[in-house]
Amino acid sequence: MEQNIYDNAHFFKEYQAMRKGTLSANDLIEIPEIRLMMPDLSGKRVLELGCGAGGNASFFIEKGASFYLGTDISVNMINEAKNSFENEKVSFQVLKMEDLSTLQEQFDVIISSLAIHYVADFDKLCKDVYRLLPKEGYFIFSQEHPIGTGTILNEECQKEDKTKIGDKEYYLVSNYNENGKRIVDWNDCKVVKYHRNFSYLINTILLNQFKIVEFREPTPSEELLKIKPKLKNQFDKPYFLFVSLKKE
Amino acid sequence: MEQNIYDNAHFFKEYQAMRKGTLSANDLIEIPEIRLMMPDLSGKRVLELGCGAGGNASFFIEKGASFYLGTDISVNMINEAKNSFENEKVSFQVLKMEDLSTLQEQFDVIISSLAIHYVADFDKLCKDVYRLLPKEGYFIFSQEHPIGTGTILNEECQKEDKTKIGDKEYYLVSNYNENGKRIVDWNDCKVVKYHRNFSYLINTILLNQFKIVEFREPTPSEELLKIKPKLKNQFDKPYFLFVSLKKE
Repeated sequence: MEQNIYDNAHFFKEYQAMRKGTLSANDLIEIPEIRLMMPDLSGKRVLELGCGAGGNASFFIEKGASFYLGTDISVNMINEAKNSFENEKVSFQVLKMEDLSTLQEQFDVIISSLAIHYVADFDKLCKDVYRLLPKEGYFIFSQEHPIGTGTILNEECQKEDKTKIGDKEYYLVSNYNENGKRIVDWNDCKVVKYHRNFSYLINTILLNQFKIVEFREPTPSEELLKIKPKLKNQFDKPYFLFVSLKKE
Repeated sequence: MEQNIYDNAHFFKEYQAMRKGTLSANDLIEIPEIRLMMPDLSGKRVLELGCGAGGNASFFIEKGASFYLGTDISVNMINEAKNSFENEKVSFQVLKMEDLSTLQEQFDVIISSLAIHYVADFDKLCKDVYRLLPKEGYFIFSQEHPIGTGTILNEECQKEDKTKIGDKEYYLVSNYNENGKRIVDWNDCKVVKYHRNFSYLINTILLNQFKIVEFREPTPSEELLKIKPKLKNQFDKPYFLFVSLKKE
């Protein structure tokens, strides 16, 4: 039997918003994918690193989490989150990812959605997260994809990370094998990000005793492509990398 | 004390050959790197998949391997290998990587140098190799780097996988997230290769119960760059990916 996705109330609401151009690749790919990667959340204590305005909190509570703590470096974001949620199981706190050592309690599931690439010291982050997890605890994160974070675009291609040769589009790639700081333009602001190639990520994860559960580089479904054709670019160069780790 | 690499006899011989343009990135990066990744080889039984003319055999014997079997799909290569080596510890056999199930003995270290990307079924290869290893056995391989193997160059850029924008060179990347067959031109021949993105490689390795020891995406040393400046392109887009796995 075919699935009539258009009669799914949630999808249709998102579909309408998307037709108005308000849904991004984050909404359409990143958020659904990281949620698919979650283990059973019943009774689990959840910590989110870089929670922003707390958009994920209700998902975790609906899935049965006993407690959700959202942390973010931004006071504005945490204030907005606090104003949006009133639930005794949900709590928000201004906290930098660099300062996780101030947390004393443990969490069964620690997640981070598109924030890891703002942290300079990935090794320290792994150590801090490991300490906050019990055995069998999960660390699940998404980040901008390393093929993209490496590339340094010069003035001539600041606005476009691809080029057309003949009738085929190619993405511009450079500096993949030079880990470190990148300063990029985003909404006319300078944003600092940190690029780490795959081998650095994998080896740092393993040196910190995590078990790798899986990596994901998802592509959009045919359904999604019909309504947002631009996402076919995910077959050429994915925006996101997803990682699921476990403490054994 | 500074290292005078130019008075190292082996290096100087290679340096002279390189100045004549006869040493490739394989000689300068791939071969040294995969050898650096080897565990203690004393008394170990070694199997090489895709050994070509057997260039690695003497290295393993010098390092103390008790036995080396080189296998390759090419009769010509195996004949050349057999003619080049006369050592009771060394043996060569025409054998496709798809037919490893015909091997009955076990090997402590199984290596493959730039050949894995010719195999269509990486999952089956992992299963076959796993069966041939004892506990604590190693599977160490290099392959062409996934950023490169994915890209499909059209006629307009067949000869050049990069482009200059302003005064900076960028590599052309496409189709990274579409695993599968690629047909590429090499010395005026059509060669079939198989592209697998990082998440497919990692997840397949883990599903086959291997422990990941490390991944490597090496960059050339300053010394190497002085004598072969072209290799600075390894900082933009590496040619090779190296993987070390262990059976627990």
